Amino acid sequence: MKNKVNITTLEEKNLINNITNISIIGAGNVANILAKNLVNSGYIINQIYNRTKSNAVDLVKELSAEFISDLSQLNANVDLIIVTITDTIIEPILNKININETLIVHTSGSISIDVFSEKAINYGVFYPLQTITKNNFISLKNVPICLEANNEKNLSILRNIAGSLSSSAYEIDSKQRKILHLAAVFACNFTNHMYNLSSKILEKNNLDFDILKPLIAETAGKVENFNPSELQTGPAIRNDKNIINNHIELLNDIFKNDKSYKNISEIYSFVSDDIYLKSKLKDKN
Amino acid sequence: MKNKVNITTLEEKNLINNITNISIIGAGNVANILAKNLVNSGYIINQIYNRTKSNAVDLVKELSAEFISDLSQLNANVDLIIVTITDTIIEPILNKININETLIVHTSGSISIDVFSEKAINYGVFYPLQTITKNNFISLKNVPICLEANNEKNLSILRNIAGSLSSSAYEIDSKQRKILHLAAVFACNFTNHMYNLSSKILEKNNLDFDILKPLIAETAGKVENFNPSELQTGPAIRNDKNIINNHIELLNDIFKNDKSYKNISEIYSFVSDDIYLKSKLKDKN
Repeated sequence: MKNKVNITTLEEKNLINNITNISIIGAGNVANILAKNLVNSGYIINQIYNRTKSNAVDLVKELSAEFISDLSQLNANVDLIIVTITDTIIEPILNKININETLIVHTSGSISIDVFSEKAINYGVFYPLQTITKNNFISLKNVPICLEANNEKNLSILRNIAGSLSSSAYEIDSKQRKILHLAAVFACNFTNHMYNLSSKILEKNNLDFDILKPLIAETAGKVENFNPSELQTGPAIRNDKNIINNHIELLNDIFKNDKSYKNISEIYSFVSDDIYLKSKLKDKN
Repeated sequence: MKNKVNITTLEEKNLINNITNISIIGAGNVANILAKNLVNSGYIINQIYNRTKSNAVDLVKELSAEFISDLSQLNANVDLIIVTITDTIIEPILNKININETLIVHTSGSISIDVFSEKAINYGVFYPLQTITKNNFISLKNVPICLEANNEKNLSILRNIAGSLSSSAYEIDSKQRKILHLAAVFACNFTNHMYNLSSKILEKNNLDFDILKPLIAETAGKVENFNPSELQTGPAIRNDKNIINNHIELLNDIFKNDKSYKNISEIYSFVSDDIYLKSKLKDKN
């Protein structure tokens, strides 16, 4: 990755980076994990905004932060505001807050930095490329953090915050970040859905999902060292029609009374065809 | 898993298990990894059959085994024959060999034990539930091995061989094994295909696949402790139509001149719809 940022030492960081007080808009998965990592690195979380208190109450308590549910109470007199709310409401929320000259960032993979351009003076993006669920605390130490800012000074500030949380920070512009997010949907969200379907197949047949865990770990572990295109195994790449047809029949039978799985055999066929298509065209090259 | 087999100690094993000499039919991925693990555990590989010598030559040399390309040369005077060839040719191959009373097993997830019933006296199945590629040696130590045999004595022999290779052996009948194999196609083959698609998206945009590796590791690591249905994140489960439509446009643009990726945006839509369908029906329950 050509844009990898060199992480400065802690001393350099404290010289450049006067960021201490941070407020967070949102109290969902990203807010939870990011805020806890920030506090662990010595930052102070001042205010946490959320529409409903119940979803924020544990986090606010744990971080000794102030809870607000009214955006007019947001105190812009902090060093950084982090907007962690869902993409679709970032813009409407920005219209309701008073940012002044405070540095403000969002954490979204898909929203352009330009969302801030008419609303803030100092702004950027702080996108941790990871699947984050609040019930599972993770350190951001090995999580790539993708940074973008409206000027060098702000980028340098974000670089330092990222450096205090993670060993891996990247300068990624909005266009590249969208591509990364799209790739992450395949590598994470769709992969998890495949796990989910496999788990359901076993559950319906009284087999324990545990038996698949070494396979899942190995499948993911292998791409550390090989390109996934070299690792494809199974009936689809062999174009083993007997097994493929047998699997489709099995799926239809297992899920015949379950509406929420009505598409599973189509997914099986569709993904299998795609695996074979790629291997066929690769052979031709 | 109710059928988990207790692994006997090495001493017990040597008492019960007189298996020493093993011949292998096939020289592909499973043959390679299984044979090497067997040799590491003290077994001797006598003969390796393969149609073409070139694919078998390295393995034969490494294991000091005899190479044969003519099935009439197969010496049934060994303790075990392991059939590792692709599912579709197991039956035709069995018709060509002289098995006598030698114990014979196959390593397939999908082929019933009954394939042997008219051809052998002592037979079974020895199915390692793992994705195996010969260029990547793995120990079978943590790999679940699914066992089936035509009688208790043969099952006991297979149990002991499995126990000398792996800490995790299961008695799984042919029907359950088919289900496991089907689930494994989703958890491994389809998952790897999702990695492959994500890798291609990045490659086409000059972004390095390395940046996704922590995400892939975390996505797989999480299912060690949580049910995948609790872990779904991303635009599909939020039904974020803006991002979904934007991703589909991006895919159409990235792959507009690449025939082998012509279905990628359909896969995106189809899997996204399925993720959302499940979350919607789950909410109703």
